[in-house]
Amino acid sequence: MEQRIMQSAAFDEKCSMYRQRINEFLEQSHKGGVPGVLYTPMDYIFSAGGKRLRPIITMLACESIGKSGIAAAGCGAALEILHNFTLVHDDIMDKSPLRRGRETVHIKWDEASAILSGDAMMGIAYRLLINEVKDSPRGMEILSRFTQGLIDVCEGQARDLEFQQTPIVSMDEYISMIEMKTARLIELSAIIGALYADANNEQIKALLSYAYHLGIAFQIQDDVLDLLADNKEFGKVIGQDLLEGKKSYFIVRANECIKDGVDAEFIHQYIEKKGITREQIPLAIAMFKKHGIIDDAVQTVQSHIHAAQAALSLLPQNEGTVGLEMIADKMAVRTV
Amino acid sequence: MEQRIMQSAAFDEKCSMYRQRINEFLEQSHKGGVPGVLYTPMDYIFSAGGKRLRPIITMLACESIGKSGIAAAGCGAALEILHNFTLVHDDIMDKSPLRRGRETVHIKWDEASAILSGDAMMGIAYRLLINEVKDSPRGMEILSRFTQGLIDVCEGQARDLEFQQTPIVSMDEYISMIEMKTARLIELSAIIGALYADANNEQIKALLSYAYHLGIAFQIQDDVLDLLADNKEFGKVIGQDLLEGKKSYFIVRANECIKDGVDAEFIHQYIEKKGITREQIPLAIAMFKKHGIIDDAVQTVQSHIHAAQAALSLLPQNEGTVGLEMIADKMAVRTV
Repeated sequence: MEQRIMQSAAFDEKCSMYRQRINEFLEQSHKGGVPGVLYTPMDYIFSAGGKRLRPIITMLACESIGKSGIAAAGCGAALEILHNFTLVHDDIMDKSPLRRGRETVHIKWDEASAILSGDAMMGIAYRLLINEVKDSPRGMEILSRFTQGLIDVCEGQARDLEFQQTPIVSMDEYISMIEMKTARLIELSAIIGALYADANNEQIKALLSYAYHLGIAFQIQDDVLDLLADNKEFGKVIGQDLLEGKKSYFIVRANECIKDGVDAEFIHQYIEKKGITREQIPLAIAMFKKHGIIDDAVQTVQSHIHAAQAALSLLPQNEGTVGLEMIADKMAVRTV
Repeated sequence: MEQRIMQSAAFDEKCSMYRQRINEFLEQSHKGGVPGVLYTPMDYIFSAGGKRLRPIITMLACESIGKSGIAAAGCGAALEILHNFTLVHDDIMDKSPLRRGRETVHIKWDEASAILSGDAMMGIAYRLLINEVKDSPRGMEILSRFTQGLIDVCEGQARDLEFQQTPIVSMDEYISMIEMKTARLIELSAIIGALYADANNEQIKALLSYAYHLGIAFQIQDDVLDLLADNKEFGKVIGQDLLEGKKSYFIVRANECIKDGVDAEFIHQYIEKKGITREQIPLAIAMFKKHGIIDDAVQTVQSHIHAAQAALSLLPQNEGTVGLEMIADKMAVRTV
């Protein structure tokens, strides 16, 4: 136990060092850029903090294959920028007012600034990535994967929007949507780190499986936190998904397992009216609890975390691989 | 003269053949894509027709360096997709209701669909381009130029938006904005065709100069057509720029050369109120005519066209180069 705590402290320190390097790349990526209407929102987004989960995974994946993690910081930063681009545009589409405890870009500025600075971020991400991989023997493969990831994330978001117009979404459909929308970018983060270290196919497959399960766990956890997180720490509005009428894990599961009575009527109304009011959020939470759906979600998160960790057994045992394992450990208990 | 007419007919036929090949690439680029919310607007945009000016320039530039023009059709199509992505997003930001005589994407569907299908188009453009250039010795250079072009176009659009909040815009600032917003993509089209044919630096410089002048001519011509075009043929609302309060060529020039009287007051009001009403459009046109600003714009277009053609003298004399010259000829008399 004591060893585990020490290991965890050392890992936190390492992550903090990685994070610093990533932040340097983010800052450099658009340094001196004009006009302000484009780059001020970008600064605002990059300086909002965040765990830098995706680039840290890139760096650890690179390390797990045997190359220095720090060498992949630039590639990681490109993934963080891609991720941030999706957040800025998703927040417009989802009409979300808050992100990481601060106003979203389209609220703080306007929609045009949010659309345009998001577009430019995509360009900035490619510029950084091309610069990092142009001399790498697998540079084209990295760019190709990055591009397919971008397309997949758009398809995932489109499905998410479509679900709001679809009365009944099955659990399979939900999982396939979050695979595209959330897991894909985490998979991409791992694969790009691995390709940068010239990983073989077996290793890439193992990392893909790790990242897939981690990504699914992450999104279901996100749905859980949307309901149960501490508002201040979480930095979003509690129950935002339900206000927006999203087909979250809870709604999808509730619709599958509650067939009669007032609770079935509640779900029916949710679907019909595309969401509930702020006042109804505690009622919804109580209902999910009563039917064991929150426990069920937490269980599902845990089993994906275990599957993620199991996939790592096929990788070399080194500091990078241990780091990836610890990321999964931390995911299981995350509160933000 | 007769030879010129024959040459023009043959060139039109060639363009039509090039256009067909480009359209095939556009169709293939997202074939079978789901979900519909993402790909239906894309089909709608790609099938709206259009001159395919940028990809034809790519193909002719490739041909001018000595490689087959048809070989560069895929690269050209990637540029056409990039161009269409900017149109879809710009139309949201500019609140434009019509494009090529049809409803814009955010009007026909909604803003979320327009944002997201635009984002996906960017990914589709990269996927196509990477596929075309991955084995080219100058593939990374092409991707790098493409990316910088994307960033520049965003910066140009940002300046355009900023200008709407800036009372006085100088002619230099206007030219520098349209250089980024419009000329850059035409430059990029020429350069990518040239790089694909492994052009030398001298040739690239000549094509850059050609495309710069063509691009500036194109944008000023666009400002002219915004006022004078036949509505049906043009497919946009006449005077749309003035309704939006844009700092078009006319407003910038009028503000520089009209210092007193009711016309100066008219310009002052335009700047103050960020645009004029539909009823005032004929008044504005009459005023520009009276002060010779329309003649001045037409003159400026002509001199950039001549400069573009002059730059071609440094290229090999072949069918590609002659094609580029004819593109400039046609630009001088375009009505759509």
